[in-house]
Order: sequence, then C-alpha cells, then structure tokens
Amino acid sequence: MKGVDPMRRTGPISNNTIWRLPRYLHILNELDAKDVACVSSAEMSEGVGMSASQIRQDLALFGTFGQQGRGYEVKTLREELIRILGVDRRYKVILVGAGHLGSAIVENFRSIAQGCVFQAAFDIDPAKIGKHVGGVPIRDGRSVTEYIRENGTDIAILTVPREGTRRAVSVLDAAGIRAIWNFTGVDIQCDALVENILFSDSLLFLAYGLSRNAE
Amino acid sequence: MKGVDPMRRTGPISNNTIWRLPRYLHILNELDAKDVACVSSAEMSEGVGMSASQIRQDLALFGTFGQQGRGYEVKTLREELIRILGVDRRYKVILVGAGHLGSAIVENFRSIAQGCVFQAAFDIDPAKIGKHVGGVPIRDGRSVTEYIRENGTDIAILTVPREGTRRAVSVLDAAGIRAIWNFTGVDIQCDALVENILFSDSLLFLAYGLSRNAE
Repeated sequence: MKGVDPMRRTGPISNNTIWRLPRYLHILNELDAKDVACVSSAEMSEGVGMSASQIRQDLALFGTFGQQGRGYEVKTLREELIRILGVDRRYKVILVGAGHLGSAIVENFRSIAQGCVFQAAFDIDPAKIGKHVGGVPIRDGRSVTEYIRENGTDIAILTVPREGTRRAVSVLDAAGIRAIWNFTGVDIQCDALVENILFSDSLLFLAYGLSRNAE
Repeated sequence: MKGVDPMRRTGPISNNTIWRLPRYLHILNELDAKDVACVSSAEMSEGVGMSASQIRQDLALFGTFGQQGRGYEVKTLREELIRILGVDRRYKVILVGAGHLGSAIVENFRSIAQGCVFQAAFDIDPAKIGKHVGGVPIRDGRSVTEYIRENGTDIAILTVPREGTRRAVSVLDAAGIRAIWNFTGVDIQCDALVENILFSDSLLFLAYGLSRNAE
C-alpha cells in the first residue's frame, strides 16, 4: 500500500509522532535483517514499548494500513518510513572535532547513521591531523569552509570542546552547513538546523527517577 | 521562599515538565558561576528557548515564585532545582566499557554529571585493564559484581559494544545496580531504571528536519 507524502498534507505532523518513527524504523531494520516478512502492531509494540493502538494510529497518519490477520509488510513499511524520514537522500556528513567522542560516533557510523554518508573529519590539533578516524584521514580544521563548499556537505557532527564551540559554529554557519548535530552541551544559535544531544539533561533525568524510586 | 517537595504532591509531575528542569538548572549553574544574583523568567526564557510564561508555570508547580520586579533568586532557585531533581544525593557512578565513548563521557564527567561521583571504570579487554580513564584505573570487568555490592554503586554508564550489551546488563542487574545510563543503542530489559541515549534516533530526527526544509 502506498503512503501519503507527509509534505503534501495540509498540517504538519507533530514532533511527538515524528520522534516515534525512528523507533519503528529501528525495529523494522532488525526484522528485515532477519528476513521477517510481516509484523503486527502488537508484535511491534513489544519491541518499541508503545501500545499497538498508538502504533496503528501513527502509521495511519501516513496512509499506511496493516492487513487484517497479516499485519504490516516489513519491507514496504520500512521503505516508507525511510522515505518519510527523508533518509533515502544520502546526506553528506563531516566530523568536526576528532577526540574520543567524535571517534566513537564515526567508528559506529554505520549502525548509527542510516541514510548518511560519512565524508571527512576535521581537527585543529596538529598531533591529530593526518591520522585516521572512521576510515578517513583527519584534515586540518582550517580547511573546513572550503571543504563544505566544494563537497556540498549537509551535516556537521560537532564534537569540539565546550570552549571551542562558538567559534566552530560561526565557521560552519558561514560555510553554509545545513545542519549541526551538536554534542558540545553548549546552546548554539545559527542559521543551520540544530539537533542537540544533551548528556547532562539525560543523566539528571535518570537521577530524578532514582530519587523518586527511593521515596 | 520554600518550595513544596514534589514527592508530597498528590499527583506526580509530568515527565514533560521534569524534562525541562535540567534546562533551567543548566542556565542557573551558568548564572551562579558568574555571580548573578537574580534572574527574571524573561531572561531565563532567552537561554532555554522556552516562553517566560511556561517557565513561570513550571516553577510555580514546585511552589517557587519570583518576586515582582526582581525575578528569581539564582542561588535559592538553583538549590531548589537540585533538591527536586534529587542530585543533592551524590549518586555513585561506574563506567562499564572503557572505549572511546566511555572515555569521552568520564573525561567530561564534571561538566556533564552534576550530583554524581565517578567511582571506577571496567573493561574486559586485557589491553585496557590497568590503564587510566577519567582519573581512575580501568579494572577487570569480571570484578564488577563484587565492586557494586561492596561500594553501593547507584548508576552504571553502559558503553560496551552492541553485541556485549545483553550479557553486561544481566551481570549489572544481578549485582543490584539501581540505574543504567544506556549508550549501546540496544533496547534493554532489566530491573534497574534505564535511560537511553539514542544517537540514531536523534540523527534520523535531524535528517527529517533537513528533508522538510528542502521541500
């Protein structure tokens, strides 16, 4: 069954719904790798920790309906979610800051980054330039503007130290980067789209849960 | 002004609200470090990207009210949020998996982990055991059960490879760990409280934003 392109809908789909789609895609990737052909909303529900009715409701938003008694076709639904999430476009990604964190991310890039191509890594530390990370050489950070312009880079993974964040962001922004995946913990303002990974918020949330459990 | 202990409220505070508190604490930490005495909800709003009325509403839930014309006292509000979030309790934390990612986290532990004490690191790789990370020696992973029981560890930062996840979780769970901060990208089931950092979901969300911008 064909899905409806969410872009052609009159209203945007809520971020709460969009946030659930990667979870569905994650399960479908695993099922597809195991050559499972069909999955019911009840089966998906176990894997993603959401109710079957929530799943049916979310997928119906995209015009996707399971077949009575058979469920969803894994391959079709997976392809549809990939298209909806826009990860059929092969975004070009660079790493800015090749320390421990950046290395960990790009070395696991294939399992993390569906629909993205890792292009290049940059650092300003002369001791790192020329070494390899995630299968590519680390380039001189001063060449990043030229690189982005010549190679049409879409996304920068930003893993520089906190104190280098603002400078790196202004360079990336001026070079015309389209999106920044920000791991620095620093709030950044720029023209590019920003997605933050906030380690400290996540740990505080965990601590809150622990203190609540202890009551 | 004294806050009301959220634990004594009749209903639990929603997770959406709790999720916003670390953002407020983050801003208050920065203001306190700069010796700023008072802050208005409008000023906080700029730093956290939420409306001033949302902030006033959230803080009122805890019985915290700014003073007309002066705003909130930074020190008092900060201490209150620390207490509400339960991070005045000095949770004991260990690292399980001392690769690039684990090293990056514990080396930035002070800026990431308010209210937590980093105790020890573990790995099963003989080449890593005995080396140092985040100021502590890396111990043999086979001693983790004994360590947790003897030292009353609260939280394990789980940064083992995907394929080692289930085994590590069953060991930690049997040892009585209270919480797991899970970076493996693998869904885990256990008695401990789990908070997941899902890199792939975050990047998919960014890709979705890019594809929407391109339309």
